[in-house]
Amino acid sequence: MPKQPAAARRSAASRAAILEAAFELVGEVGYGRLGIEAIASRAGVGKQTIYRWWPSKGAVLFEAILVRGFGDGEEPVPLPDTGDLEADLRTVLRATALELASPEVDRPLRALTAAMVEDEALAEEYRIRVEEPTREAKRARLRSAQRAGQLPASLDLDIAIDAIFAPMAHRWLTRSGPLTEEYADALLETALNGLRHHGPN
Amino acid sequence: MPKQPAAARRSAASRAAILEAAFELVGEVGYGRLGIEAIASRAGVGKQTIYRWWPSKGAVLFEAILVRGFGDGEEPVPLPDTGDLEADLRTVLRATALELASPEVDRPLRALTAAMVEDEALAEEYRIRVEEPTREAKRARLRSAQRAGQLPASLDLDIAIDAIFAPMAHRWLTRSGPLTEEYADALLETALNGLRHHGPN
Repeated sequence: MPKQPAAARRSAASRAAILEAAFELVGEVGYGRLGIEAIASRAGVGKQTIYRWWPSKGAVLFEAILVRGFGDGEEPVPLPDTGDLEADLRTVLRATALELASPEVDRPLRALTAAMVEDEALAEEYRIRVEEPTREAKRARLRSAQRAGQLPASLDLDIAIDAIFAPMAHRWLTRSGPLTEEYADALLETALNGLRHHGPN
Repeated sequence: MPKQPAAARRSAASRAAILEAAFELVGEVGYGRLGIEAIASRAGVGKQTIYRWWPSKGAVLFEAILVRGFGDGEEPVPLPDTGDLEADLRTVLRATALELASPEVDRPLRALTAAMVEDEALAEEYRIRVEEPTREAKRARLRSAQRAGQLPASLDLDIAIDAIFAPMAHRWLTRSGPLTEEYADALLETALNGLRHHGPN
């Protein structure tokens, strides 16, 4: 039992309100104009309350996005595994295309990207808490496909993951083309063709 | 003949000094701590001189990188075309891997990326002045390979460009793995295998 249940409850409520406010605000004004003062005001707390828990607006935003995307401290969702690699990846890539194309996801993700390009510590935390667990979930799905004989056993899984998933992330970041289901399908076809025909040189 | 050759010469010299100072400084302190005042001081000009020509530090930096990378207002260098698509792309991708892995390129490029994620006008200018001409040079090389029968004529060239070039850019941005010649070769093999086996569904 916590010693100060009421204070602990108030802390938890304040934290949740701050994260919610940060997530909402960045969607409205973008990262450049996101301010600790505005977050505090919308969350109904003082600025010092925010600075007690987070060192920067980037850190608040990171936590806010993490809580939305993965649940608080939980493992990332594994990739679907119906036994059909191509169908499963199509499901994932189509869903990713639609998500990235939606303003509710686009804006906070761009803000987080901006924060991380400037803040190496935040980027490192992202790698540990998001990127690497997500990659591991992808590796697990590809290993299952290797066991099922759908991909060569000799494949370098990190190359495979980059080939399958990176082009869409890059198109999103550079806005170099539309993010559609057709694009997802075409990318997947190209990547899987390349990976299936992989062999030792 | 310009009416004020001496003044015009002084302007050109100031511009060059400002761009040089911005490029050097961002390599030393990163984008977050890059300041107009520090650029002005190193270039030996007043802050107002900078603000007369550029609206923001991001805009100065963009110009500084553009001048370095492409010559001032010149066309981007075309991709090599020896008639052997795989060899030519290997040359380009290996060179890109080594460049991105070097701090002199990594730091200014990260700074520019940070600036563009926050500044849509700058991102749009980048698309027009860098991304699209570069893509067009890549398309031209792939069209030449199509004419030589090295790639299917039915290929969507923008999908092909994403499949070949995006994974390395993404690995660089996310620092998700080392940028080596081996990585370049493995990516290229996967992408080209996928593109060669492309067919209408």
